[in-house]
Amino acid sequence: MSEGEPLVGRVCENGITTLTLNQPQRRNSLSMAMLEALSAELDALAGDAATRVVVLAAQGPTFCAGHDLREIREQFDHPDFQLALFNQCSKVMQQIVALPKPVIARIIGVATAAGCQLVASCDLAVAADTARFATPGVNIGLFCSTPMVALSRNVSRKHAMEMLLTGEMISAARAEEIGLVNRAVDEQVLDETVYRMARTIADKSGHTLRIGKEAFYRQLEMPLSDAYAYTSSVMAENIQAHDAREGICAFLDKRKPDWKD
Amino acid sequence: MSEGEPLVGRVCENGITTLTLNQPQRRNSLSMAMLEALSAELDALAGDAATRVVVLAAQGPTFCAGHDLREIREQFDHPDFQLALFNQCSKVMQQIVALPKPVIARIIGVATAAGCQLVASCDLAVAADTARFATPGVNIGLFCSTPMVALSRNVSRKHAMEMLLTGEMISAARAEEIGLVNRAVDEQVLDETVYRMARTIADKSGHTLRIGKEAFYRQLEMPLSDAYAYTSSVMAENIQAHDAREGICAFLDKRKPDWKD
Amino acid sequence: MSEGEPLVGRVCENGITTLTLNQPQRRNSLSMAMLEALSAELDALAGDAATRVVVLAAQGPTFCAGHDLREIREQFDHPDFQLALFNQCSKVMQQIVALPKPVIARIIGVATAAGCQLVASCDLAVAADTARFATPGVNIGLFCSTPMVALSRNVSRKHAMEMLLTGEMISAARAEEIGLVNRAVDEQVLDETVYRMARTIADKSGHTLRIGKEAFYRQLEMPLSDAYAYTSSVMAENIQAHDAREGICAFLDKRKPDWKD
Repeated sequence: MSEGEPLVGRVCENGITTLTLNQPQRRNSLSMAMLEALSAELDALAGDAATRVVVLAAQGPTFCAGHDLREIREQFDHPDFQLALFNQCSKVMQQIVALPKPVIARIIGVATAAGCQLVASCDLAVAADTARFATPGVNIGLFCSTPMVALSRNVSRKHAMEMLLTGEMISAARAEEIGLVNRAVDEQVLDETVYRMARTIADKSGHTLRIGKEAFYRQLEMPLSDAYAYTSSVMAENIQAHDAREGICAFLDKRKPDWKD
Repeated sequence: MSEGEPLVGRVCENGITTLTLNQPQRRNSLSMAMLEALSAELDALAGDAATRVVVLAAQGPTFCAGHDLREIREQFDHPDFQLALFNQCSKVMQQIVALPKPVIARIIGVATAAGCQLVASCDLAVAADTARFATPGVNIGLFCSTPMVALSRNVSRKHAMEMLLTGEMISAARAEEIGLVNRAVDEQVLDETVYRMARTIADKSGHTLRIGKEAFYRQLEMPLSDAYAYTSSVMAENIQAHDAREGICAFLDKRKPDWKD
Repeated sequence: MSEGEPLVGRVCENGITTLTLNQPQRRNSLSMAMLEALSAELDALAGDAATRVVVLAAQGPTFCAGHDLREIREQFDHPDFQLALFNQCSKVMQQIVALPKPVIARIIGVATAAGCQLVASCDLAVAADTARFATPGVNIGLFCSTPMVALSRNVSRKHAMEMLLTGEMISAARAEEIGLVNRAVDEQVLDETVYRMARTIADKSGHTLRIGKEAFYRQLEMPLSDAYAYTSSVMAENIQAHDAREGICAFLDKRKPDWKD
C-alpha cells in the first residue's frame, strides 16, 4: 500500500462492488484500523443503490492472516482494547451477514483465523485451487473462538474440530469438499468464475435478493414451525411487490423481466 | 390426467403406499387444489393401518415445478389468497415431517422451488441420475423463502445460498454430494432402488418407526442435554412395548421377529 | 478379558491417555457396568494433569456393539433400570463432550447403536478403512433414539435418517464422506494416524484447548449474535492468560512457545 491509499479498496462496476483488503505487506491482517475501514465500507454499501452484489477480495499473496498479533501484543495490558477488538471483529462479520446484498469471497492465498472467518461469513466463496485455510490460533495459545462461530455454521462438527484443534492448513479442494467454499478453481479462471456468479446474481431483482438473504439467516435460527410461519408471510408480502409481479408476468409471457429495484 | 382422475394417485401394495402427483400437463405444480389433495392424502395415510411406508412420486417428465404461477397471477390482488396458499404449502411440508411413517421421494425429471422443497421435506430421497433440482424463485422476483426452510435444513449454508441466489439447476450427482438426496441412480434401477429401500423399512416394526421418526425431528430442535433427557425416556418407554421385547428376544434367540404393529 | 482386568483399560504416555473398552468377548457392549467404568475413567481424566488428549479405543474385532441386550432382557420388567441405563449412557456421552480435553475415537471393526454414538460423541474420529457403522436398533424394534442425538449432530438429515430407518451398515469410506469420522485409513497406518493427530494436539497449550473445546459446544447452541458476544469475551479473556501471551510472543519472536499449562 502506498501512503494515502485506503486500507480497503472499493471499485464498483455494473452493480458489482469489489472491496479489496489492501495491506498486503501486513498480510491484510485485521487490525482495529482495518476492521473499522471494512465496517465503514459495509455500512456505506448497505445503502448504496449502485451496488447489487459485493465481492470481497484481497491484494497480494495472502488473503487475510487474521488479527494483527503485533497490535494485540502492544495492548496486552489493556483488556478493554482486546474486548473492543473482538467485538469490532464480530460486528464486521455480522455486518456481512446482515448486509442486504449478497457477498462473495474471492480467495487467493492463505486465509487464516479471522481471515478464514471472513470467508465463512460471506454468503458464497470461490477460491483459487492453490488457496489454503486454517484456524491456527491454538498454535499460539489463543483459540480461534470467534472464527469458529462462522466456521461451525458452515462445516460439520468433526471437520470444524479438526481444523480448530490441530491448527493445520487444509487445501482449497478440501475446503470445497467440506463446504467452506462453494468452488475451488484454477487461478486462471478465478475472476471469470467469481464475476460470472456475481453477474448472474446482480441481474436479479435487488428487492428480492434483500428479502431472501434476510429471511435466510433469520429462519435458520427458528424451529421448523416458526420458520414456516415466518417465511410464508415473507413470500405473501414478496408477491405484493412490483418485482415479483413483473417477474411472474415476464416468465408467463416469455419475456425478460424489467426490475424496478 | 384424464377427466375425473384424482390430482394425487394412490396405490398401496404390501404396506408401501405410493402417492403420485398426477397433473403432468401442468408440470405437477402445487396449485391450491393440488396442495389440498396432497394434504388430504397425507391425513388419510397417517391413520391407515395398511400403510407402513410412503413413496412420493410423480407422473410425467417433471417431478414438480413448484407453485402454479398462473394461479398466483390470477390472484395478484388477493393477498389473503397468497398467504393462505403459502400456509397451505407449509402445512403439507410439515405433514410429511409429522407423518408417523417414513416418506421416500422418488424423483425423475426436474424438481424446482416448492418441488425441490418436497424432496427436501421427505425423510429420504432417491433420484434418477438425470434428475435436476433448483430453487429458481429469484429469477422471477419471488425468492424461494419457504423452500429454503427445508433446503437449508438438508444442505450446508453455502450450498443452499448458491442455489437460492443464482437460481441455477444442479444435477442429481451434485444433489447427492451436498445431501439433498440420498442417492442418484440410473433411471433403469430407480424403482428397484426406491422399493428395495421401502421394503427394507416396511419390514420393521411400525410402532418403532413411529416412535423413532417423531423423536428424530423433535430432538433436532433441542439443546444437547434436553435432547438426551428426552430421548432417554423415549427409549425406556420403547422397551416397554411389545415389539421391542419381541425384537430383542428374537435377536438373542436368532429367529425372525414377529411384529405386532 | 482375564478375571480381574478392568472393563476399561487406561494407559497414559506423554500426555496422551488411551482408554480401551476391554470386554471383546461381549463385543465391548455398553452394559451398566461398562458405562459406569467409562464414566469413572472420564471423571478421573477431567482432573488428571498428566492427560492432555484422550484416545478412545477398543480391544478385539468389534469396536462396540451398543447396549447389552442380554442385560436389557433380564431387566424387561424393571422400567426404572431401563431409564437409569439410558440416562447413564447419555451421561457418559455428555461427559465426553464436556471433558476439558480433546477426545479422539480410534475405530477398528464394527461400531453399532450406542457404539456408533460413542464415535459421534468424540471430538474427532479416525477409522480403519475396514470399519463399519450402523444404528440398527430399528431391526430389533428398539429405535436408536439416544444414538441419533449424537449422529444427527454430526451428519446431515437424510444421511442420518437412512442409517436410522434402514438399520444398514455403512462403510468407513462412506462414514468419512458424510462426516461421521474425520478419516478412514488403512489399518496398517491407523495408530500412526491417530497418535500423530493426538501428538499434534497434545503439544498445544492445555489451557487453550480447555477454553476452546468448551466454547465450541456452547456457542453451537446459541443464535449468531449471542454466539459472537460470548466468544468475543472468551477470546478477550484468553489473551489475559499466560499461554496466549507466551504463544503470541513466541510466534512474533520466531521461537518455540513454552506453555505453562
